[in-house]
Amino acid sequence: MNTDCDYSSAYVSLCTNTDLVGHGMTFTIGRGNDIVCMAIKEVAARLVGKDTEELFADMGKTWDWLVADPQLRWIGPEKGVIHIATGAVNNAVWDLFARTRQKPLWKLIVDMSPEEIVRSTTFRYITDALTPAEALDILKSNDSGKKEREQTVKQVGYPAYVTSAGWLGYSDEKIATLTKEAISHGFNHFKMKVGADQADDLRRGRLIRSLIDDPSLLPSGTKARDPNSAELKGKNAGPTGAVLMIDANQVWDVEEAVEYVRGLQEIKPWFIEEPTAPDDIFGHANIRRYLAPYGIGVATGEHAHNRIVFKQLFQAEAIDVCQIDSCRLAGVSEVLSVLLMAKKYGVPVCPHAGGVGLCEYVIHLSLIDYIAISGSMERNVLEYVDHLHEHFLYPCSINDKGRYNVPTNPLEGYSIEMHKSSIAEFSWPAGSYWMSAKEKGQVPQ
Amino acid sequence: MNTDCDYSSAYVSLCTNTDLVGHGMTFTIGRGNDIVCMAIKEVAARLVGKDTEELFADMGKTWDWLVADPQLRWIGPEKGVIHIATGAVNNAVWDLFARTRQKPLWKLIVDMSPEEIVRSTTFRYITDALTPAEALDILKSNDSGKKEREQTVKQVGYPAYVTSAGWLGYSDEKIATLTKEAISHGFNHFKMKVGADQADDLRRGRLIRSLIDDPSLLPSGTKARDPNSAELKGKNAGPTGAVLMIDANQVWDVEEAVEYVRGLQEIKPWFIEEPTAPDDIFGHANIRRYLAPYGIGVATGEHAHNRIVFKQLFQAEAIDVCQIDSCRLAGVSEVLSVLLMAKKYGVPVCPHAGGVGLCEYVIHLSLIDYIAISGSMERNVLEYVDHLHEHFLYPCSINDKGRYNVPTNPLEGYSIEMHKSSIAEFSWPAGSYWMSAKEKGQVPQ
Repeated sequence: MNTDCDYSSAYVSLCTNTDLVGHGMTFTIGRGNDIVCMAIKEVAARLVGKDTEELFADMGKTWDWLVADPQLRWIGPEKGVIHIATGAVNNAVWDLFARTRQKPLWKLIVDMSPEEIVRSTTFRYITDALTPAEALDILKSNDSGKKEREQTVKQVGYPAYVTSAGWLGYSDEKIATLTKEAISHGFNHFKMKVGADQADDLRRGRLIRSLIDDPSLLPSGTKARDPNSAELKGKNAGPTGAVLMIDANQVWDVEEAVEYVRGLQEIKPWFIEEPTAPDDIFGHANIRRYLAPYGIGVATGEHAHNRIVFKQLFQAEAIDVCQIDSCRLAGVSEVLSVLLMAKKYGVPVCPHAGGVGLCEYVIHLSLIDYIAISGSMERNVLEYVDHLHEHFLYPCSINDKGRYNVPTNPLEGYSIEMHKSSIAEFSWPAGSYWMSAKEKGQVPQ
Repeated sequence: MNTDCDYSSAYVSLCTNTDLVGHGMTFTIGRGNDIVCMAIKEVAARLVGKDTEELFADMGKTWDWLVADPQLRWIGPEKGVIHIATGAVNNAVWDLFARTRQKPLWKLIVDMSPEEIVRSTTFRYITDALTPAEALDILKSNDSGKKEREQTVKQVGYPAYVTSAGWLGYSDEKIATLTKEAISHGFNHFKMKVGADQADDLRRGRLIRSLIDDPSLLPSGTKARDPNSAELKGKNAGPTGAVLMIDANQVWDVEEAVEYVRGLQEIKPWFIEEPTAPDDIFGHANIRRYLAPYGIGVATGEHAHNRIVFKQLFQAEAIDVCQIDSCRLAGVSEVLSVLLMAKKYGVPVCPHAGGVGLCEYVIHLSLIDYIAISGSMERNVLEYVDHLHEHFLYPCSINDKGRYNVPTNPLEGYSIEMHKSSIAEFSWPAGSYWMSAKEKGQVPQ
């Protein structure tokens, strides 16, 4: 589906009358990035002249106001280009807020009182599923354990999974090499792309399964995990405790999805990700119902365009795993509303990452989820792709157990600031990379 | 909600190597129009160099290909700016097709065989609700009556309703004058905006109701219609057969909507339009369930962003009336899929209109619905606003019974071509209107 990717970023810097600058970005896959940049300019223009402390004092209200431009709203509302652009801007405001307080973003939020977190969250259009009072109860019930969980995750890191070996079109040799490499780095959750050809998916799946199920490939000193332990239950884990997930990137209609995925039960996936159109709540619910007897769950969210879609996915019991996207939702305030609903409905949150900057963003969101909201990271896994981190001042990193390290630099905010040199080189169309490509005749129209 | 409207149009002309030009447009309410124009350029660029007859030969396939750009898809998919832009372009292709065949658009389509109409429709992601085979059955069952229905609607016109008197903020005197005027023009369905203040809504509603229920105000020679007739049943019609609808433009959360609208039952609305977020299928279904005992229905669709949302509104039995928008859906091929699903699920289609050019577009869609698909216009009403028609070469018009006339000019295509003089005057930012306003210091940044 997402063929011909040209990983791109629409980047925004909010300047103040002090040295402080807030950075935000959203991720795109090529053409269309310019359109998002134009929309960001329109949305960000609303902030010019505002007092930052007034914005920070009630971030939920700031969010509601930012999405409610009476004219721009029409070309959404709260979806597509204008919502993605609002996400970049809202994330930049949060980055600025965190830098002002000299804390990484996750720390800024977990240090807030339950009342402050509620005030930072948007509840518009979701109060039939979650009221501010219910959100407050959730946050209060987890408040006393926050310090301990913060210490824990700093020590052990946050669970991650890799997609590196599972792309379509790789040779068996490449798949085997990359899978073994991932195992040696301590990973135990692996994702594979499917949907182009069922026989090919089975072949690749069998190969991956044979490697991740092989106890002799585990890094020295690592023991096989019990597939029936609480953290692995229902995940279709193999004898070493390894878990395989499959991702279809929206290629099927509903009935087609059920048929196709049933045919993959032999490779024992934990879930099928994005089996159909991201707008299709009923479709996901039906696919989940039909696949349940085969022990295969359903995940989605990377393209779920706002909290109202997630609300319905929860209400319809349509998903086993909630995959929020840090850029497609309109920034941290809307992410908070989804994290709180996921907690209420008992669905684990495993954010989408990869692309450009998504890994840098999402570790913050998962830390907020674990420390302040769900109180658990037992069954969660955060996507990780080792790709393009070199462009960021504060890149994310992975420890030797295949888990995300906790960002701790008090100056890093939301960790999304890019190197000036990267911007100078890759800015479209006048960056040095593009000018040089143009000279060589390598730039398409 | 949509305060501060500055009615705007993103207009596209597709030129060919003959004299034929296809025109399309989408409607916006001000800022954001530029963003849509930029997106239109990206989408339309995909058509450069294509053979028009190849495009026309399979308009469903043409549509699927147009929305499936692997990079642009990311910033939707199939929603918001990129989908609205695709609508303008798809409508322009259909306009070109109709002009090539020297027929108005509706006539081009109703003259197609059932097989050709199916081929012109997109079915992606909706086959769990409607298969091409089911669509074919629907079309075949209505095929033999097409000629007769075409004659009928040419004679009597297509039913319409007005919103002219019902805007928020009008004085009682203005409301009375405009309502009487609409009655005298033959209208018998009236819509009123609500949601800012319940007491004010009740006052305005009582005033409108008192006038539309007054037999002495009916135009001479017009008889009161039976409120219990098939065409009015369930519409909460008053003693003269007049129907009142109310429209909230998405202002409420779900529970708030139910509470508020229950308080308006005294003015006997047929339906509440857009009670909550347009993405909230479950919300609409719940509101409908809770309002049913009060005899008040639910309508939505003006902001339903694609066929997948409509599919679920039908599956969830969430709406009494389906209000497609000719510009928000990505053009005629997607509209056809919604019309066919509406027929299968037994929901009448009453398209959204007003704005710029929407009335010109939608009469074509309702004619296709009546003649080829639903076979009925008994309970349907098409929105009409007497506004901005002067900019179009082939403006829509209303007969003396308050019904739309049928467009018949073989050269008018989809009736959306604008006068060159209007374009020269109002193009942003260099049109003569804007240059003059700029000189006077009346143009905002």
